[in-house]
Amino acid sequence: MTNLTQVDKYLETHLDESIAELSTLVAQPSVGAQNWGMQECARLVGQMLARRGFNVEIMPTGGAPVVFAERKGRSNKTLLFYNHYDVQPAEPLELWDTPPFEPSLRDGKLYGRGVSDDKGHLTARLHTIDAILAADGELPCNVKFIIEGEEETSSVHLHDFIRENKQKLAADACIWEFGGVDHREVPMQYLGLRGICYVELSVETASIDVHSGLGGSIFPNAAWRLTWALSTLKGPDERIRIPGWYDGIAPPSARDRELMAAQPDLAEEYKSRFGVKGFLKGLTGGVELALAEVFEPTCTICGLTSGYQGPGSKTVQPAQASAKVDFRLVPDQTPERCLALLRAHLDEQGFSDVKITFLGGEPAARTDPDDPFVKIVVDSAEEIYESKMEMIPMVGGSGPNHPFVHDLGLPVATAGLGYPDTRAHAPNENIRLDLYLKHARHMARVMYQFSE
Amino acid sequence: MTNLTQVDKYLETHLDESIAELSTLVAQPSVGAQNWGMQECARLVGQMLARRGFNVEIMPTGGAPVVFAERKGRSNKTLLFYNHYDVQPAEPLELWDTPPFEPSLRDGKLYGRGVSDDKGHLTARLHTIDAILAADGELPCNVKFIIEGEEETSSVHLHDFIRENKQKLAADACIWEFGGVDHREVPMQYLGLRGICYVELSVETASIDVHSGLGGSIFPNAAWRLTWALSTLKGPDERIRIPGWYDGIAPPSARDRELMAAQPDLAEEYKSRFGVKGFLKGLTGGVELALAEVFEPTCTICGLTSGYQGPGSKTVQPAQASAKVDFRLVPDQTPERCLALLRAHLDEQGFSDVKITFLGGEPAARTDPDDPFVKIVVDSAEEIYESKMEMIPMVGGSGPNHPFVHDLGLPVATAGLGYPDTRAHAPNENIRLDLYLKHARHMARVMYQFSE
Repeated sequence: MTNLTQVDKYLETHLDESIAELSTLVAQPSVGAQNWGMQECARLVGQMLARRGFNVEIMPTGGAPVVFAERKGRSNKTLLFYNHYDVQPAEPLELWDTPPFEPSLRDGKLYGRGVSDDKGHLTARLHTIDAILAADGELPCNVKFIIEGEEETSSVHLHDFIRENKQKLAADACIWEFGGVDHREVPMQYLGLRGICYVELSVETASIDVHSGLGGSIFPNAAWRLTWALSTLKGPDERIRIPGWYDGIAPPSARDRELMAAQPDLAEEYKSRFGVKGFLKGLTGGVELALAEVFEPTCTICGLTSGYQGPGSKTVQPAQASAKVDFRLVPDQTPERCLALLRAHLDEQGFSDVKITFLGGEPAARTDPDDPFVKIVVDSAEEIYESKMEMIPMVGGSGPNHPFVHDLGLPVATAGLGYPDTRAHAPNENIRLDLYLKHARHMARVMYQFSE
Repeated sequence: MTNLTQVDKYLETHLDESIAELSTLVAQPSVGAQNWGMQECARLVGQMLARRGFNVEIMPTGGAPVVFAERKGRSNKTLLFYNHYDVQPAEPLELWDTPPFEPSLRDGKLYGRGVSDDKGHLTARLHTIDAILAADGELPCNVKFIIEGEEETSSVHLHDFIRENKQKLAADACIWEFGGVDHREVPMQYLGLRGICYVELSVETASIDVHSGLGGSIFPNAAWRLTWALSTLKGPDERIRIPGWYDGIAPPSARDRELMAAQPDLAEEYKSRFGVKGFLKGLTGGVELALAEVFEPTCTICGLTSGYQGPGSKTVQPAQASAKVDFRLVPDQTPERCLALLRAHLDEQGFSDVKITFLGGEPAARTDPDDPFVKIVVDSAEEIYESKMEMIPMVGGSGPNHPFVHDLGLPVATAGLGYPDTRAHAPNENIRLDLYLKHARHMARVMYQFSE
């Protein structure tokens, strides 16, 4: 019924062609935060799908367009792939060993911005489709792709897009944009994602910067206003001090603890990978570190900017200051409520001069570990990875799984080519070609078994 | 005995030439903080003095060189001019109406970085010397210039330079680098300068930036560490919280209060000039605002930098963060003691991970308002400015007057071409040509009277 041997052989013998296609895609910058190359990249992705016989639509969203593609298959089941073509900014550029938008292959790895997050996932899945079409002449099920361009900027328009296109996106199950193995080469099944509420806090205290000899004693200072406002949000105990922030948050369940406890202790790996000396809140490792990593709301300063930042000294009192702040949300926090709590808190603390600009957000969402589709993805991985797939009830990162789970009603399973040193969002982002091939082989098995 | 009429006429008829010389000097960038053009500017200044028959030495300091120049005169008295050839960084460049290093003359004003602070003061004084030499063929007294290149970066090497060259610098009185009129066109005599202790505070929490979805809950964040450390230094009540900071500080004397009370209330002018809505510490104006402006120690954040600062959002947890912090000192605080107190405080508050880099400093110093040289400068101004010069016991800014007052034992008087909208340290720095001419005329009278 299936031609898996033939498919596997195709995947292996045509790997170079797929990596070449990925390199072309990575060489097309698509930095959402900088609005760089978005339309061009969407068109390129559309052409890649059209070449495989998909009906392709480049659909407007109000921001970067969504590439939607559909091809009918043998069974009447429909599998939806969610991917994104946008990438994180490549800065700081000086920390890249080779230029971020000139993909470079060395030691079995491909380096470049977006090779892992998320362009490699897309081309590996297209590689699977090529192999199945070569073996069978048709797909075993209907396949749809929704490939957005705003994942790295909090998927601002995706939720509305999905609600307005529920019919078009109708499916039976969804494969998520990412996945991968841990440091033991064990494949991971991530079943939930935290939400996010990303804001910029900004203050303006004067019309021009003032000589600090004059302004220091008597004029308000934007950098100080920002520093003090930030310090009311969270102290060194890491507890978020905004009243109501923790209301209605469910602690991890017994099942969550059990699944998390089955995970290896990552404490030492984190220390060596990121060069951190220790962890927050007195954590040292084990299940408590793992639970803290993903089941707690966070308040992270992602960036600070004010006044003079060059070498040496400049005696100036800044008129403007701003911070990028990323709040990770857990069920059932919502960005809307969090924004209202933040505004009320700043006002109450005397910081009504601190402006909040909402840069994107989405609530958290989870998929049932006992869903039959999850079982297909988990079970079919074992042959490829020579290891059982491990179920993680929740991860620390965010993504727009909420509308897939709650508006489209889909089970969402993860599978991918990531690995611990993939450096998503950081300089020298890379993928391992062996894991690229494994992901393509895994996806072939998922498609066949799902279609039965 | 003097040819003042002739001197005045020369100053007026040769003004264009002096402004042309100033424009050439401004067009030579000399941004100390960026180590840009320092040697070139020192050489240019040396040539300008040599052309006037001065013996010139470009003297090494360990940083930017000092230009020392000397020319003998009729009397055996020696007047020392202190100037500097370095300028503040011109950033933010986009706020300049014309490029900062391409001097532009419009509406009776010359615009450019350094036209006021301090290159215009130097060329106006050379203009006076040209006029006197044209009229008399000689100078009425010995004249020395000490023109340093590190004034805008806290004169790091000047104190040692002066101690090591006391003989060479020996004089009877000193004219300071700056001065000017207030918003009523009244010339001001500034008799004291606050000290300064300028530091960079920096934190490093990891070897690389971490995805905020992972790092936010469990890894230390450099931007948070910095924010919390800063917020221990000063709160919204503006009181510096470093233990011992206010020890041994003399409050303003009755004479200080009297001199400050004679000043006009600048509250409304500050509001319109700088676009501030109000003042710190509940101040509304009057003598209390004036006293707070100059007689209190300050702690000013001059700049903040960490993580992602571009447009839109980037979900990253910064590994590094730093702040530029400017402490203004009053008698008898010293930078050395303040640094020690700051380090002890940060350690005690749990911030031994916050590194302090000392970027320069000097103690405060004052000149006696009843010194005879001060009287010459004050009295001779009245004819020029059609207004009595007002005595200000202390100003908010800093400068290296301490070694002039305490090592060379000189009375230091201020006189200059500044005015309230001169925008020193800010975009569109400018001077008024009428005040340039007045300063040159004032200096001629000071030189003649001082020499008698």
